[in-house]
Amino acid sequence: MRIESLDVYYLSMPEILDIGDGSQDALLVRLQAGGHIGWGECEASPLTAIAALVCPMSHSACKPVRESVLGQRLDGVKDIQRIGNLVRENSLDLLQADHMLSGIDSAMWDLLGRRLDEPAYRLLGYERAHPKTPYASVLFGDTPQETLDKARGIRERGFRAAKFGWGPYGKGTVEADRDQVHAAREGLGKEGILLVDAGTVWVDDLAAAQLRLPALEECRATWLEEPFVSGALDAYKRLAGMCRTVRLAGGEGSHNYYMAQHMVDHAGIGYLQIDAGRIGGISVAKRAADYARAHGVTFVNHTFTSHLALSASLQPYAGAEEGALCEYPVELKPVAWAITREHLLPDADGLLRLPEAPGLGVTPALEGLRRYLVDVEIRAKGELLYRTPAF
Amino acid sequence: MRIESLDVYYLSMPEILDIGDGSQDALLVRLQAGGHIGWGECEASPLTAIAALVCPMSHSACKPVRESVLGQRLDGVKDIQRIGNLVRENSLDLLQADHMLSGIDSAMWDLLGRRLDEPAYRLLGYERAHPKTPYASVLFGDTPQETLDKARGIRERGFRAAKFGWGPYGKGTVEADRDQVHAAREGLGKEGILLVDAGTVWVDDLAAAQLRLPALEECRATWLEEPFVSGALDAYKRLAGMCRTVRLAGGEGSHNYYMAQHMVDHAGIGYLQIDAGRIGGISVAKRAADYARAHGVTFVNHTFTSHLALSASLQPYAGAEEGALCEYPVELKPVAWAITREHLLPDADGLLRLPEAPGLGVTPALEGLRRYLVDVEIRAKGELLYRTPAF
Repeated sequence: MRIESLDVYYLSMPEILDIGDGSQDALLVRLQAGGHIGWGECEASPLTAIAALVCPMSHSACKPVRESVLGQRLDGVKDIQRIGNLVRENSLDLLQADHMLSGIDSAMWDLLGRRLDEPAYRLLGYERAHPKTPYASVLFGDTPQETLDKARGIRERGFRAAKFGWGPYGKGTVEADRDQVHAAREGLGKEGILLVDAGTVWVDDLAAAQLRLPALEECRATWLEEPFVSGALDAYKRLAGMCRTVRLAGGEGSHNYYMAQHMVDHAGIGYLQIDAGRIGGISVAKRAADYARAHGVTFVNHTFTSHLALSASLQPYAGAEEGALCEYPVELKPVAWAITREHLLPDADGLLRLPEAPGLGVTPALEGLRRYLVDVEIRAKGELLYRTPAF
Repeated sequence: MRIESLDVYYLSMPEILDIGDGSQDALLVRLQAGGHIGWGECEASPLTAIAALVCPMSHSACKPVRESVLGQRLDGVKDIQRIGNLVRENSLDLLQADHMLSGIDSAMWDLLGRRLDEPAYRLLGYERAHPKTPYASVLFGDTPQETLDKARGIRERGFRAAKFGWGPYGKGTVEADRDQVHAAREGLGKEGILLVDAGTVWVDDLAAAQLRLPALEECRATWLEEPFVSGALDAYKRLAGMCRTVRLAGGEGSHNYYMAQHMVDHAGIGYLQIDAGRIGGISVAKRAADYARAHGVTFVNHTFTSHLALSASLQPYAGAEEGALCEYPVELKPVAWAITREHLLPDADGLLRLPEAPGLGVTPALEGLRRYLVDVEIRAKGELLYRTPAF
């Protein structure tokens, strides 16, 4: 079969808040081939990704992403790899292309899975999908009291693990950060797995990050996530050398396989966090997961948006051992919740299972999404390059 | 003074050819502050960069680039650094932001230099700009004969060095590539400095690259550029270990400081090539140049477009020793040539000098550019986000 159509849909809350919550908008990708439909989702700026999809060619290595996808044969897993390589070659100098490709790649796995009547993880080579331990992923409260209340709520909902991130953490004093981490630990109780996400707040300032380690170790945090921006491998490595019990986690900023590999090779991390909506899709995330495993680093999904993106980000390490951690956003904005008809909910044991259904196992709930659909129109060189299509 | 306006202009040849020639379009940036004007230029996809400039916010770390620039104070060099950091923080998850920032950063150096009546290189800390040895940068001919003719022409024009790249190189047989490299050497004569650019054609296939080394060494090529994509550090490092006389060059794909640093630390390159229009501007290129120098790697500009971009890419290593190589594109499309009123031309000794004039020392030739101006209109969420402004 050939890819006959490639449509993208920008969805957004009516109002976007200036907070670290990536669930406020989304870019959905719909592929059609041979009577089948596949869906995927891209991080992060929908309008910019659309521009990467439809822009005029600048030169032979800077072509619009759709040119490498539309009309291509899609008969098996190798075609997904081939199309990804085409995009990377033809859009080498188009920086945003990796993010746009991510949604397309996920949609290809969804479509192929539906055609072959197999879950995506089986097409990836996993016999079965082992259930994961979801960690409730939330923003720090504005105050330690708010964080305490959030942590208690998470524990009451049955989560064994929780991650607190962004918000005020790292922006004020060391003491204020200590109070936040202690509040989170108190709320989760002694047994809860506590994870802390600094959201790159120290950029590459080793000293600032080092000052936060004692509180994290007092509170038995399992990991400190993104003390630095993704590329700051040296700072990561040096901070890792200063940790006694806490491990470092990072990698969500990776937008290609090599960046993930560099984190594993040179950053001293214990956990590699990959967003299938950024790294180039499920295909690239799977390569990163295999590389991490082979090098003794634990792979974890990064997901802070819909359950379509969640399913896509879980497929690449579906075969990891039972009970491995997975990120599970629990403060989704209505648009992100509304994206899928089905939702991935923890079972009675508090474990999260991938759907035993073809492709990604979830389907967009189009009717409910209409009110979030953003009207976009892009014209250049006398042509209408993009207008929001009908669902 | 405060940045009062930020306008961008998409320029393009009427027809874009499907060849590796990056001079076929351009995105110009114009900043105004305190009665002064500064200009810069971004690689590579103008429409996608415009989208990164004006897109709606997705969340606190995915804001449109202009939000971190407009209205900011710009009184000195530290403000340029501060504004760059703001963009990187506020647009952390907006992949294309680094390319858009590149033109803005260069425009800030131009503007500040004009205000302080100093060339940008002096504001960067260089006492003087040492003349460089320009290498004529061209595409391989479709046949060895065409390459031979090109090389002879370059020699006749007085260039001591030339780089041949892209075109058929690496896409056919090892013998065909050998013939191309021999033709280039023959045309340049025994004394000419010969550089070869594989344009990432082998992605990360070490064996394919290794097969080309003998011909490069027979022909005394000074460097082999981009055998692999920027992130393929391991492949670079291993290939470097196989080279006897030829050195590796790479880094043009770097879109932040860390990527350049990784090339220096882990790729075994002899030459670090940085495009100020991609890495985040002159500011980041200067940091990369300093790092390379401190680690025994020779910094070289990457430039394949206008003389505005050329001046911007030369400023960061203006103080490097006299006669250092610099990339000098000699097959510019009319739009790229027309961008500046002044041009940087080799002197009687065949050396290239930066203009001894404020800022970048070149100014856009607006009248001549009108016919290349692309009409763009971007609407989203009921708002007109961008329409090509008047010059």
